[in-house]
Amino acid sequence: MELQKPYFAVIFTNTRTEDDNGYAEMAEQMEALARKQPGFLDFESARSGLGISVSYWDSLEAISKWKTNLDHQAAQKLGIEKWYSWYKIRICKVEREYEFRR
Amino acid sequence: MELQKPYFAVIFTNTRTEDDNGYAEMAEQMEALARKQPGFLDFESARSGLGISVSYWDSLEAISKWKTNLDHQAAQKLGIEKWYSWYKIRICKVEREYEFRR
Repeated sequence: MELQKPYFAVIFTNTRTEDDNGYAEMAEQMEALARKQPGFLDFESARSGLGISVSYWDSLEAISKWKTNLDHQAAQKLGIEKWYSWYKIRICKVEREYEFRR
Repeated sequence: MELQKPYFAVIFTNTRTEDDNGYAEMAEQMEALARKQPGFLDFESARSGLGISVSYWDSLEAISKWKTNLDHQAAQKLGIEKWYSWYKIRICKVEREYEFRR
């Protein structure tokens, strides 16, 4: 259905290096920290070789603030130095949604 | 960077039933079929319990046509009857993107 109040998604698609040192702990910490940020709505994550994590936010401002959070910036730096061989981040406006539950 | 020409993402998040009968084959067929549709741009998929598949399209019209494709509709019907315990589909406009490559 069409959303009366659109919200926003950050699609983070990535491939990893072979360097696992500290990765899982940091990923867990960053998810926990994201969940505490103002404007955070939800987080979904999966990996099969390719990793896809999607976080949902109530505004673009909330996404900007999360991007520049100091602990998050330190994690981003380590991600580029060590953990990711490639990533793409897409900032999206969620305009419609449908849900099915058995 | 800000996109001069926004494009669209369909985020399909799902959990599966225990019924694997025909699922992998159908998922493969539907990805191959999607890739042939007008306006298709890209497809990304991962699963760790939770499944996340994201397809990218050049217009909302392309997404509508793919949704109503007859073979795709037959697959959607089977998905609801057999394969998915829950899913959520979000139609999004991609407004900004960033990429890193080692």
